[in-house]
Amino acid sequence: MGKALIIGCGGVAGVVIHKCCQNSDVFEEIMIASRTKSKCDAIKEQLEGRTPTKIRTAKVDADNVDELCALIDEYKPDIVMNIALPYQDLTIMDACLKCGVNYMDTANYEPEDTDDPAWRAIYEKRCREAGFTAYFDYSWQWAYKEKFEKAGLTALLGSGFDPGVTQAYCAYAQKHLFDQIDTIDILDCNGGDHGYPFATNFNPEINLREVSAPGSYWEDGHWVEIPAMSIKREYDFDQVGRKDMYLLHHEEIESLAKNIPNVKRIRFFMTFGQSYLTHMKCLENVGMLSTTPIEFEGHQIVPIQFLKALLPDPATLGPRTKGKTNIGCIFTGKKDGKEKTAYIYNVCDHEACYREVGSQAISYTTGVPAMIGAAMLMTGKWSKPGVYTVEEFDPDPYMEALNKWGLPWQVNGNPVLVD
Amino acid sequence: MGKALIIGCGGVAGVVIHKCCQNSDVFEEIMIASRTKSKCDAIKEQLEGRTPTKIRTAKVDADNVDELCALIDEYKPDIVMNIALPYQDLTIMDACLKCGVNYMDTANYEPEDTDDPAWRAIYEKRCREAGFTAYFDYSWQWAYKEKFEKAGLTALLGSGFDPGVTQAYCAYAQKHLFDQIDTIDILDCNGGDHGYPFATNFNPEINLREVSAPGSYWEDGHWVEIPAMSIKREYDFDQVGRKDMYLLHHEEIESLAKNIPNVKRIRFFMTFGQSYLTHMKCLENVGMLSTTPIEFEGHQIVPIQFLKALLPDPATLGPRTKGKTNIGCIFTGKKDGKEKTAYIYNVCDHEACYREVGSQAISYTTGVPAMIGAAMLMTGKWSKPGVYTVEEFDPDPYMEALNKWGLPWQVNGNPVLVD
Repeated sequence: MGKALIIGCGGVAGVVIHKCCQNSDVFEEIMIASRTKSKCDAIKEQLEGRTPTKIRTAKVDADNVDELCALIDEYKPDIVMNIALPYQDLTIMDACLKCGVNYMDTANYEPEDTDDPAWRAIYEKRCREAGFTAYFDYSWQWAYKEKFEKAGLTALLGSGFDPGVTQAYCAYAQKHLFDQIDTIDILDCNGGDHGYPFATNFNPEINLREVSAPGSYWEDGHWVEIPAMSIKREYDFDQVGRKDMYLLHHEEIESLAKNIPNVKRIRFFMTFGQSYLTHMKCLENVGMLSTTPIEFEGHQIVPIQFLKALLPDPATLGPRTKGKTNIGCIFTGKKDGKEKTAYIYNVCDHEACYREVGSQAISYTTGVPAMIGAAMLMTGKWSKPGVYTVEEFDPDPYMEALNKWGLPWQVNGNPVLVD
Repeated sequence: MGKALIIGCGGVAGVVIHKCCQNSDVFEEIMIASRTKSKCDAIKEQLEGRTPTKIRTAKVDADNVDELCALIDEYKPDIVMNIALPYQDLTIMDACLKCGVNYMDTANYEPEDTDDPAWRAIYEKRCREAGFTAYFDYSWQWAYKEKFEKAGLTALLGSGFDPGVTQAYCAYAQKHLFDQIDTIDILDCNGGDHGYPFATNFNPEINLREVSAPGSYWEDGHWVEIPAMSIKREYDFDQVGRKDMYLLHHEEIESLAKNIPNVKRIRFFMTFGQSYLTHMKCLENVGMLSTTPIEFEGHQIVPIQFLKALLPDPATLGPRTKGKTNIGCIFTGKKDGKEKTAYIYNVCDHEACYREVGSQAISYTTGVPAMIGAAMLMTGKWSKPGVYTVEEFDPDPYMEALNKWGLPWQVNGNPVLVD
């Protein structure tokens, strides 16, 4: 069918690459490009001969539009898949516009250096304008809408699990299950256990931000902001069991509030274990989570970077992690004039993921929907010029692909609601 | 009366110097010597003109016997007061022997580089021989006994609060309150609050050692070793209130077991708050308490040293600390054929100490007995050639001095016992 340029070579990219190679009818050729070509070569070597997909690799600095364009012009992909950090979203979108190629990513843009006062001022202003305090919002990327429309190109934003699959669940519920969705609760539960007293699944800076940023939810047409971790619920998750979960701000709430007509309330909850939170709090108390460098033995050391060096490498967690994730959406609303509830969710097993692609469920649940989102664009099942989030497309082929490619979902028509 | 050479210029030394200057009849002249002469000069400047005591300062490397001897020969003190780290005890004792001058310290010797496998092997062997696992024991310094006897010099070991005052309490109880002491429980309670979520009163390495080393107590003629922090009791301390306390190994148990005839059991308990322990545990879990350097950005960084740089400087805790310490000994035994109990203890107020000498109670309760111990030797109230701990001398003048110099004690004849 076509060619995809995959930018990034971390844990999620590893899953994306495995999945593209499983789906060779669509991904006839892929190019893996990152700052460190040797990492790309290592994956290529691992997969070559086990897939009909032709694999090439390249070195690219995703911060550099000219370098990206040179690579795109040479390789001529049908889509650029941005599986790198969200800091590079805008430069990669710029390169796609310049070279006339479709774009997709898994998480919305945020400025890299939020400790730089100049950047922070800009992004805090944007957040204030959006009506909530978060370190990321869609405004940066929605600003590209007209440019993509004029260029006749599609940019698909946030096709991971959450954001991504959760929005497909919403679009599916809107299309098939409800006439009117009143409330959406997105529940993200990781019941995995890596056996370490403390470790983070990805960059500890991002974990820290999750637990220290104010929470917010959408209600009656506006944002309600709450102190960090101040709304806690216990929920009994299918195949995982009882877990504490906390209300967080999460990016897909912003787009769902625009795209689900007359929705009254949207909340996002994520599970955190008490031990994890205690470690985060203690590390914060002693200053280990600070991003401000301190002078130590003549060197400038950033405490959270040093912590990162001490903690187990997230890449080593995969083979150790047992248990399951359970992520989904609980809906309330009306159908044929009657009150109705529904819960769409996926349960994913860490060890099964690791056996299949060498990554545990956290990377797997993000990487599979990234491949599927790209496939939607490459096959023309999703096609309209502009910048869109997942719920703005027909959910049916995406939902079908989830079942086919390893993230089967189920619908519980009578779920326990979150109070 | 005479001249004292004070080696060290940290928090405890600051108290010692203040107290010597209050006791100018005995300490007519003092010399303050440390690696950093400017720190000595700063204290001198602060006190000069406010005391009849003549103050001099000098730079000295306490690891260097020749340098110490040059200073002693020039100044000709009546006593050398070792208020530096316990790592220098042996070199200073060597210098005292060489120059013919009395010696005293506040904590028994331990080798500095316990991470060095060669050193560790030596000191673990010594500990095994002593019958318990601790990072310090008296054997190093007791080995000097004969040399000091032959030289006609006195070395007074461990004249701080615990060790030190607690042993004077034992000697006092033995002399005045009991015919036979059966059990001694030493209770060290710090009810102070510095207002930080986490900070250490001195080197975090020493704090760590306290909570991670196996505990041990003396019973029926031998050591009983227990896992770290595995014996916990709650006790209601006079003027402080209820606190959790844990059984630790502590150095004075070793000498008391030899010097209190037929004692059946000696235990040491120290209070730790739950929040303090949780922070220590979390920091340990992530590797921040490790003394093994890791490679970080091209530098070798020792995690616990980096942590130390992050934590509030212990010197800044003084002005912030409120509350009291309560340290003492509970005795059971017999007097005139009858069962008897007694509790001798001191309560010390952090803020009152700070007002008086610019240090809170942790330094105050160590520094005052150091001055008193030195005064005992300088006045000849305590005088016998050899190496001795506090309980081996007549307690009466020492106990009287405690009341006079800021650490008044009281006796409760009917205390609640520790089960």
